[in-house]
Amino acid sequence: MREEELLKLAADALVGLGLRRQDALDAAGILVLGDLFGVHTHGVSRIESYGERLDLGGIKARPDIRVERVAPAIATVEGDNGVGPLVGVRALESAMAMARESGTGIAFARGSNHFGPIAPYNYIASEAGFASIIGSSATTTIAPTGGSEARLGNSPLGCGIPHPGGRPIILDMAMSVVARAKIRNALKRGESIPETWATDKEGRPTTDPKTALDGFLLPIGGYKGYGLALIVDLFAGLLSGAAYLTHVQSWSDEPGKPQNLGHFFFLIDTRKLGPSSWLSERMNDFAAILHSTPAADAAKPVLLPGEIELNNLERQRRDGIEIEAGLREKLERFASRAGESLQSR
Amino acid sequence: MREEELLKLAADALVGLGLRRQDALDAAGILVLGDLFGVHTHGVSRIESYGERLDLGGIKARPDIRVERVAPAIATVEGDNGVGPLVGVRALESAMAMARESGTGIAFARGSNHFGPIAPYNYIASEAGFASIIGSSATTTIAPTGGSEARLGNSPLGCGIPHPGGRPIILDMAMSVVARAKIRNALKRGESIPETWATDKEGRPTTDPKTALDGFLLPIGGYKGYGLALIVDLFAGLLSGAAYLTHVQSWSDEPGKPQNLGHFFFLIDTRKLGPSSWLSERMNDFAAILHSTPAADAAKPVLLPGEIELNNLERQRRDGIEIEAGLREKLERFASRAGESLQSR
Repeated sequence: MREEELLKLAADALVGLGLRRQDALDAAGILVLGDLFGVHTHGVSRIESYGERLDLGGIKARPDIRVERVAPAIATVEGDNGVGPLVGVRALESAMAMARESGTGIAFARGSNHFGPIAPYNYIASEAGFASIIGSSATTTIAPTGGSEARLGNSPLGCGIPHPGGRPIILDMAMSVVARAKIRNALKRGESIPETWATDKEGRPTTDPKTALDGFLLPIGGYKGYGLALIVDLFAGLLSGAAYLTHVQSWSDEPGKPQNLGHFFFLIDTRKLGPSSWLSERMNDFAAILHSTPAADAAKPVLLPGEIELNNLERQRRDGIEIEAGLREKLERFASRAGESLQSR
Repeated sequence: MREEELLKLAADALVGLGLRRQDALDAAGILVLGDLFGVHTHGVSRIESYGERLDLGGIKARPDIRVERVAPAIATVEGDNGVGPLVGVRALESAMAMARESGTGIAFARGSNHFGPIAPYNYIASEAGFASIIGSSATTTIAPTGGSEARLGNSPLGCGIPHPGGRPIILDMAMSVVARAKIRNALKRGESIPETWATDKEGRPTTDPKTALDGFLLPIGGYKGYGLALIVDLFAGLLSGAAYLTHVQSWSDEPGKPQNLGHFFFLIDTRKLGPSSWLSERMNDFAAILHSTPAADAAKPVLLPGEIELNNLERQRRDGIEIEAGLREKLERFASRAGESLQSR
């Protein structure tokens, strides 16, 4: 499927679910970039769970998103419980506008929902010349170091550095050693897991995937990952005015309730630091130093963060995006509602 | 030793090494806070290695530090190869001034040196009402994931969130699973180390501390910590105009050469986001949620990042700071030079 086709289908599906056309296009743009990067778990497949919540009234199809400049380089964004990627795009736009004027800008969003993968926001910012640090609060899945109850989210963090005329460097990561899906896969295959991945429900490390799935994900680097997850939540959840820690509603347990997720978008206009030739030269050199590192295994050269995703992007923009037939049908079904709902409005 | 006494002694030592009085006081303030936090490896003990390099001309005692506002909320700071904590304080002051005006501000420092521990900068920012993200480039000790040669530094990152009327939350961490000192201690005790700590010099995980010391530190979470270390270097080293990756000179191998380290100081004025009572209430609640987590081991309650250091700060401000006799004598010896050098200038 071509990028433009998928974008149209995803936007039509969101319009079918009640969104305004422009809002649907903006939100779909983030999800389609997720698919282009190969992160299909966070791509247009998410429209299904968004749709469930839109139908239940857990997410508002036509929110009144309000952006308030509280300082020349700080904006707060009230998402009014809109679809996450829509709130995300509005906040990103506001941060870009401030950074263009002041050099840097930070937008704090509240009243939001799952906002898709982070890499697309970093990518859009990078292509426009902005370095970025972006984070979100999330449903609780991690126990604090030494604790035996999930109290914080597996907060995702994305960072991007533009490379004029070349490829940006983009790191998009959550704070757990692995995602729950990886533990579920080990269970399916009947394998044990390393004891660094997760704990049982009393907070003790385990190698049994079933025990782990009843317990908690372990953060990277022990107390360091715990600390990082908590810092992301302090910026994205607490300072933004959104929910944080255990105040975040689980979208899967309570799909009909607003989550009040928060995000932050911190941008720097790199053009204020030097001409693009200066940045381009340094980024080329930076990448070359890492790429030329002798590999421990000759078959596996050293990569930069985001390199696999940017390869996927180039390939899929050229050859088309693979979308499962079942997902395509679901999106078409949502899209077909658009005609009906237009009659009733 | 009382805080004021140690501050005076450390400043006198730096004056003895050729610094101007005010510069010496500002730089000493950071190091003394390091000791107050209990991070003695990054406290006034550093004045010894700074002194060695000052004597060799590897660091300039009286640099011409220039702060340039390249945008309302971005400053670049040319450290002119001054003592790191001095360059750091000047950059922090500039970031605070910009954040007061614009809400946020970022200062990029280049031409700098080891700038002490990061937590003191986050602490000063927090006490003044600013949330902060601060990082530095560092000498290369980490191999990229899959690589068998050190190409990036164990870049330190510090984050702070103010808590009006209460304790800030401060996370100060480097990107390796453990510091080299911990591997050296295992060697001394004749113990093996977990294979997640380090690799041999071909980049293969090892449990032998001696092999590990000849090899590289492993970053937290594998490619995630590698990515984070690299992002810190992109902000602190590359965007700042300083050295990055293998361009950073090792201060221990080449003490007589400028390192051209870089730092970034990103600040947000939290008072623009809401009244201090609002922030205080949320920070109290945030801390209470984490502190009330049932502990896996009842004897080890859940802690917040920076909590141990802030306990040390309170205790040592009350009871005095423990400084080794040998270190005290060294500082006094440096300080005694002040009289002599004043004659000769």
